Amino acid sequence: MADDNETNSQVHPEATLGYGYTEESADPIIGENATIRAGTVIYDDVCIGDGFITGHNALVREHTEIGDDAIIGTNTVIDGRTDIGSSVSMQTNVYVPSNTTIGSNVFLGPNAVLTNDPYPVREDVTLEGPTVRDGASIGANATILPGVTIGEGSFVAAGATVTSDVPSETLAVGTPAEHENLPDELQGANDI
Amino acid sequence: MADDNETNSQVHPEATLGYGYTEESADPIIGENATIRAGTVIYDDVCIGDGFITGHNALVREHTEIGDDAIIGTNTVIDGRTDIGSSVSMQTNVYVPSNTTIGSNVFLGPNAVLTNDPYPVREDVTLEGPTVRDGASIGANATILPGVTIGEGSFVAAGATVTSDVPSETLAVGTPAEHENLPDELQGANDI
Amino acid sequence: MADDNETNSQVHPEATLGYGYTEESADPIIGENATIRAGTVIYDDVCIGDGFITGHNALVREHTEIGDDAIIGTNTVIDGRTDIGSSVSMQTNVYVPSNTTIGSNVFLGPNAVLTNDPYPVREDVTLEGPTVRDGASIGANATILPGVTIGEGSFVAAGATVTSDVPSETLAVGTPAEHENLPDELQGANDI
Repeated sequence: MADDNETNSQVHPEATLGYGYTEESADPIIGENATIRAGTVIYDDVCIGDGFITGHNALVREHTEIGDDAIIGTNTVIDGRTDIGSSVSMQTNVYVPSNTTIGSNVFLGPNAVLTNDPYPVREDVTLEGPTVRDGASIGANATILPGVTIGEGSFVAAGATVTSDVPSETLAVGTPAEHENLPDELQGANDI
Repeated sequence: MADDNETNSQVHPEATLGYGYTEESADPIIGENATIRAGTVIYDDVCIGDGFITGHNALVREHTEIGDDAIIGTNTVIDGRTDIGSSVSMQTNVYVPSNTTIGSNVFLGPNAVLTNDPYPVREDVTLEGPTVRDGASIGANATILPGVTIGEGSFVAAGATVTSDVPSETLAVGTPAEHENLPDELQGANDI
Repeated sequence: MADDNETNSQVHPEATLGYGYTEESADPIIGENATIRAGTVIYDDVCIGDGFITGHNALVREHTEIGDDAIIGTNTVIDGRTDIGSSVSMQTNVYVPSNTTIGSNVFLGPNAVLTNDPYPVREDVTLEGPTVRDGASIGANATILPGVTIGEGSFVAAGATVTSDVPSETLAVGTPAEHENLPDELQGANDI
């Protein structure tokens, strides 16, 4: 990787920092100590904190804000106009649509899919992604429907399809997801 | 992006138009006003209409025909020998296997997966993907089994697993998917 | 593609054989007659047998061993420290986490997701992926939970979420997956 002496970051030469999408767009701002792997594309008009790490071919589109110490996995796509907190871990192949809100200490498992259009291309509605509150986790290959809130510290099981708000400190499991108390092993804060 | 004065298209220099897969293969034909983003690969022996748009790292393999005004999202893979109509929108991470038929005004949500092999590598059968008729929509992370027909104007819910034909103007929901009447919000034509 | 006269392999110039991840890492070892497509990245400290084929943008991370005649599909990610047998076919968009064990004659359908962390970032446990025994098949978009064993010759249906061990020669279907006898069409060995 190429070293950037000023920010102590390692950016692979096949990564793209600043993908222009309009003539007026501005370079992305990325904090110190970043590790950005080959094939990753960060659009213009993105603002990211320190300690940013990506896998390969991650994509972060315009008007996204991300806090410190975020990990964005290989092939994961963040489609823009999204706010993401600090100490967030997104694994491989995650999809985050535009207009999504993600808190801090959030974990998104591999192939987790968030959505923002309740009646895709059939009704002219405002696109609104999920809200994932601080300390929540979403399991592998889970699907989260538009506008749903995943409560603080909650846990969405692998493979679940979440169609309604999940209260805080709750396990959501199944298709459609039903709500249960968190088992002992899932009590406590995320350590990312 | 590089401008192509002849076709009024924008093709990113890191996109590949014409990936040769045999010595006899022919350059792909792509209509006017295309926008093709970085990392996208279009194989030889592909024919695409006007107004074609791709995300990043989209892949369209050989012997695929696509009409006008199609959008192929980031990381979406079309595995070849497939017919696709006009005004089709495929979101991010969609998988379309070979020998699939997709009509016009069709929407495929993020991580939707179509399949073409009913008994993979256990029986020597003809591979046949689904048939998705005009105006149908497939929700995020839905799975469509081989040879299934999704009827005209139907809607497959997010996370559903569709194991049998869906009649026209029908909602398919769950794993395995059950059929319901379309709710009011999903009545009417797709507007892509 | 570039020809390698010594090994009779075709490696696309935009593929990366030997992605260094530490200063001490060693070049990967890849057998004869490989076909490695554009965008694929093979890390250092990987050992792969003869007849290796990849799609586009496949990723194989460090300390992975793969036998002969393996096919790794487009966008498929193998996250390292994993043992994989011979005559294995992974389709597009498959995710294999670290510390996974996969036998020979195994088929993984498109968007199949294996996992290795039962209580992600909530308990400090040893990460352990599934064990997929010889001749087993995993259908499209199925999710396999950590530490689960898929028995010899078994078949996981498309869209299933497998939460407990699947005995040999068994069909696992649904979310959570229930076990059934293999239907006639799924009897017999995988022919990869």
